[in-house]
Amino acid sequence: MTKSIVPAKLNESNDKLILLDQTLLPESEKYLELDTKEGVWEAIKRLSVRGAPAIGIAAAYGLYVCLNKVETDSVAELEKEMKEVSDYLATSRPTAVNLFWALKRMEKRFEQEKAEDKNVEAIKAALLEESDEILKEDQEMDIAIGEHALTLLEPGMGLLTHCNAGGLATSGYGTAEAPMYLGYDKGYDFKIYADETRPLLQGARITAFELYKAGLDVTVITDNMAAQVMKEGKIDAVLVGSDRIAANGDAANKIGTLGVAILAKEYGIPMYFLAPTSTIDLETPTGDDIEIELRDPEEIRNGFGRRTAPKEVKAYNPAFDVTPTKYITAIITEKGIVEAPFKENIEKLFKD
Amino acid sequence: MTKSIVPAKLNESNDKLILLDQTLLPESEKYLELDTKEGVWEAIKRLSVRGAPAIGIAAAYGLYVCLNKVETDSVAELEKEMKEVSDYLATSRPTAVNLFWALKRMEKRFEQEKAEDKNVEAIKAALLEESDEILKEDQEMDIAIGEHALTLLEPGMGLLTHCNAGGLATSGYGTAEAPMYLGYDKGYDFKIYADETRPLLQGARITAFELYKAGLDVTVITDNMAAQVMKEGKIDAVLVGSDRIAANGDAANKIGTLGVAILAKEYGIPMYFLAPTSTIDLETPTGDDIEIELRDPEEIRNGFGRRTAPKEVKAYNPAFDVTPTKYITAIITEKGIVEAPFKENIEKLFKD
Repeated sequence: MTKSIVPAKLNESNDKLILLDQTLLPESEKYLELDTKEGVWEAIKRLSVRGAPAIGIAAAYGLYVCLNKVETDSVAELEKEMKEVSDYLATSRPTAVNLFWALKRMEKRFEQEKAEDKNVEAIKAALLEESDEILKEDQEMDIAIGEHALTLLEPGMGLLTHCNAGGLATSGYGTAEAPMYLGYDKGYDFKIYADETRPLLQGARITAFELYKAGLDVTVITDNMAAQVMKEGKIDAVLVGSDRIAANGDAANKIGTLGVAILAKEYGIPMYFLAPTSTIDLETPTGDDIEIELRDPEEIRNGFGRRTAPKEVKAYNPAFDVTPTKYITAIITEKGIVEAPFKENIEKLFKD
Repeated sequence: MTKSIVPAKLNESNDKLILLDQTLLPESEKYLELDTKEGVWEAIKRLSVRGAPAIGIAAAYGLYVCLNKVETDSVAELEKEMKEVSDYLATSRPTAVNLFWALKRMEKRFEQEKAEDKNVEAIKAALLEESDEILKEDQEMDIAIGEHALTLLEPGMGLLTHCNAGGLATSGYGTAEAPMYLGYDKGYDFKIYADETRPLLQGARITAFELYKAGLDVTVITDNMAAQVMKEGKIDAVLVGSDRIAANGDAANKIGTLGVAILAKEYGIPMYFLAPTSTIDLETPTGDDIEIELRDPEEIRNGFGRRTAPKEVKAYNPAFDVTPTKYITAIITEKGIVEAPFKENIEKLFKD
């Protein structure tokens, strides 16, 4: 099996949260060992762990290791501590929906166990089980996405990906990267190209790092080389993640995805968006209804701790773009593969 | 008139070569004052001046300021010195064709003057005239390219450019940037977008710097944002330079140009290549005959003096790409505008 890195997990004795410090990538690979609420809060706050699923997993395990240390026989006292730690951890990244979701889920499990008159020991065991379950469910979902995607791919293919929709944002497999790992396990020998993904270089820093570490064949290119590698026949499919998919199938993802999709269409290369069904927002009719976040121009002018453009010059920094369905070959979810007509087939997916 | 920066020129007393040290851009704007052969050699070698025309101009002026200092009444002695300096400067960048061309042209002028029995004083004056002429001819050519291009543009247009085909690579106006400067002088109020142009960031470091300095409205974007700014309707024309144009019109230029051209076609935006006719190589039948230079992968993995991708990971670094004519709206030269059918119209251009 692939040795993909699990970004947030417990140590062997189940009393410490082990987090890969992703802020140090790719210069060094260091793991944090945490068992205090301040340590977990700080790690989430400063983006040592990033990606919605990975943050949720880190928060659940983080809450568990803090409660595991509490020496008491009183369920009431443990509950008080839980509320305190949970409320505190929730302030680490106030916009991360998965953070609240995971903490709420842990609290709910606590309530259930308490309602069944379980003692402190049993409640702690249940919380461990619940956080393991959050990790496992995410892994199973990614594997389901990966297996569906793998039915569209063949051994030896060249695959292009953009940004990071990989293990380090999730529980080890990722969405767009899941079929790469699963294919690797089957000896598919994919040749993977990773766009470096300016301005924050998630492709170069994270995607390339994790695929390389797991033993896969990965080559970094700058974003503007995508057309050339396609022209040279090196790419047979493009696999990307998505942050939000509208009801009609238009898909938002990291800036640059739209350009890659247009190039893929020009060269007759299939363009796949891989994401859990929770990414599909039926309340958003089309991609035009998705607002594009504009980020700090300094990320472009001074992105590497070094000046790359004059400080006084304007820079435009949209964080995402939206790819219309005319450039999308398929959306691949844990429930199956959606092709055109997207609106109708997305509706079917949710009815089934 | 536009105050575009002339990258290589003489000081007011005509005894020193003034070079903008482009290696320091955009962090600082420093000018070298040179009057020794070692100083000129070093400046060309370490890319303080770059771009074929600018290197030629720097070499001619460099040769002149060195000879101007020679205190002698003997033409033979001056000639000996000229050969020495010229041969020495020629070793600064052995692949720069314009360097040899400019030095040879200066040597030829020396021979002409000598043949007419001119004295040292007169020969020095002729060499000053010749180097001024090299600068002036380049400026006239760029202005001619710019004026032809301007007939295709309208006030208020949004223009996208890639890499640097501007004043700092030439004698102050550049090729792709010449119509921007000329339009500015006419109050055309262009909104210019500059791709940062990874891996070496010529767009962010140089294009943005020089357009901003000259007072033009320029905004830097990362290369992967081109599709988004086109989709938002911000771009009315794409203007780029070219390193080599095949007889059939296929055009080689900095990596990323092909992708921009495909996107421009998709959005119905005209794609213009601006270059002197000397760039058109009739000996090269098509773009397929142009070999793509592969550069050091470390430029991608460690391009900013900082690690951006793990050192062990593969990176692919083609320096150029070739845009086939199906994505080219027009090639704009000093002799006029060439449109499809390109092969026939390029032949006509050279016959006229």
